[in-house]
Amino acid sequence: MVQETQTGRRIMSGMRPTGRLHFGHLVGVLMQWVEFCRTDEAFFEVADLHALTTSFERTDAIRRNTTELVLDWLAAGVDPQKCAMYVQSHVPEISELHLLLSMVVPVSWLQRVPTYKDQIAELGGEIATYGFLGYPLMQLCDIAVVRANTVPVGKDQLSHLEFGREVVRRFNHLYATTLVEPQATLSEFPDVPGTDGRKMSKSYDNQIEIADDEPLTTKKVRSMVTDPLKIRRHDPGRPEICPVFALHKIANEPRVAWIEENCRSGALGCVDCKSDLAEKMNEFMRPVRERRAALDENAVGLILEAGAAKARAVAKETLGDVKSAMKLP
Amino acid sequence: MVQETQTGRRIMSGMRPTGRLHFGHLVGVLMQWVEFCRTDEAFFEVADLHALTTSFERTDAIRRNTTELVLDWLAAGVDPQKCAMYVQSHVPEISELHLLLSMVVPVSWLQRVPTYKDQIAELGGEIATYGFLGYPLMQLCDIAVVRANTVPVGKDQLSHLEFGREVVRRFNHLYATTLVEPQATLSEFPDVPGTDGRKMSKSYDNQIEIADDEPLTTKKVRSMVTDPLKIRRHDPGRPEICPVFALHKIANEPRVAWIEENCRSGALGCVDCKSDLAEKMNEFMRPVRERRAALDENAVGLILEAGAAKARAVAKETLGDVKSAMKLP
Repeated sequence: MVQETQTGRRIMSGMRPTGRLHFGHLVGVLMQWVEFCRTDEAFFEVADLHALTTSFERTDAIRRNTTELVLDWLAAGVDPQKCAMYVQSHVPEISELHLLLSMVVPVSWLQRVPTYKDQIAELGGEIATYGFLGYPLMQLCDIAVVRANTVPVGKDQLSHLEFGREVVRRFNHLYATTLVEPQATLSEFPDVPGTDGRKMSKSYDNQIEIADDEPLTTKKVRSMVTDPLKIRRHDPGRPEICPVFALHKIANEPRVAWIEENCRSGALGCVDCKSDLAEKMNEFMRPVRERRAALDENAVGLILEAGAAKARAVAKETLGDVKSAMKLP
Repeated sequence: MVQETQTGRRIMSGMRPTGRLHFGHLVGVLMQWVEFCRTDEAFFEVADLHALTTSFERTDAIRRNTTELVLDWLAAGVDPQKCAMYVQSHVPEISELHLLLSMVVPVSWLQRVPTYKDQIAELGGEIATYGFLGYPLMQLCDIAVVRANTVPVGKDQLSHLEFGREVVRRFNHLYATTLVEPQATLSEFPDVPGTDGRKMSKSYDNQIEIADDEPLTTKKVRSMVTDPLKIRRHDPGRPEICPVFALHKIANEPRVAWIEENCRSGALGCVDCKSDLAEKMNEFMRPVRERRAALDENAVGLILEAGAAKARAVAKETLGDVKSAMKLP
């Protein structure tokens, strides 16, 4: 790596291997990643150790999910030649950095991260493990070990990044300026609704997956909820509250104005509107799905191996500098 | 390693690199280690990461202390050919195992380890770091990563080992029987008093160091406190409360009965008694000190390198088994 880029940015991001990705991931994250590969240095991680923080008891699917995840990345056009694509646990320097930095991080800083108590309340006391408590530190280590200076985050994750920046400042102050303080680049994507109108998410079972075929996509789109007050074909609709309209805005941009007008007037019925959307969603995802179908699963292992080698080349240097700043033997 | 031994035991122990060792370490720990090298497989670790848990802000001396520590081990007769002698941070698998096991260890288990709140009360809130909280887990990882089945511990450390055994049982139950549940072998050594009568310890500045020369040893022994009621030469003394007598029992065993009798009767004065002890302490430590003086400091690096290679050979296997039990990619 360490190549000249237009932006001088080194991006780091990752996803947990929890299953196949959906349309929301594609337009909300992966299309941005494809762009990063063009303009920046980029490190993309399959965060298998993060997956353990909340589901250490159910690890059977991690391997399969890793393959599916990487297939989705590749299908979306994320170019493994132009980034490092790797599995977190294949970069031992992340664990080493985590242990070293753990020495300078007050427990209270971790307990104060806003998501900590929320998630324990939501997921139950079983996940109140030492690893789960340390999870924002592990996130920082993912970033710091490859010396990324830029991290794409949603607003809800800004507090994690701020925690990480504090840790970097503390380390650099205690020892020597060694770690890079990462900056956020805020992702400005609209929420992508799922078939039931809530945010598209596997946990709501309302998702349209990249790996779905076209008939299934059509079926799912046809089952979508719309404006509950538009009961009959000619009733006027309210596009601003309709999830079908929200998806038109992404997958069917040229026709958005026409749809809005005809929905409001009652000229456009929901059945036709959904048929139109299903067609456009399939068109939108067709090149991605075709790439996915053409991929050789066996190549994933080699890609991840090459990616780990790229990441480790930087990570070893970082860790050497950290140990040397801490004056370890 | 994995050699046949008389006992079938694999021992793991370690010390923090906090400075030169003293007579108490020699008779309380190192002579036992020398014996382990004869009868068992043995792994001895310079616990530099442990040193960070309580003094992350003062790391300047860790390198020098590591060298001094290993010189003391070698001087005592711990044979690097017959054990693995290594620096903790040179075995990255310990950090990796620590992160993996952290996922299954409830924070409450760590908070309940009896020494945790005691040490925070004693050393102040500054050390209430994430790393300090995880320190008993790190101890277990030191042991588990080399698959040691036997750990020499003092009574005050039994709770740490019991914690570690619980973690092993939980891991083996959740995934598959992978980790060895270590057993304690209790060290049965008398407390070794320092010059002021308290337990010999650098923190009390009352120690007689292995690396002290003979005149300094004599001077320190002559400064020792004795029975405060034996003020004049012919006053009767109480050997059972006299630290000089306690050291006679270790370094001057053949004359213990005679000293006891003559101290009690008042026939033996403290000045003579101390002169005798100083001579015997110097005799006791002479071979150790001669070996230490003959050691080449530059050899320490090579010994630690070879030791890390031995430890890592086992550690890599353990970590592979752990990852495979957890079904990581």
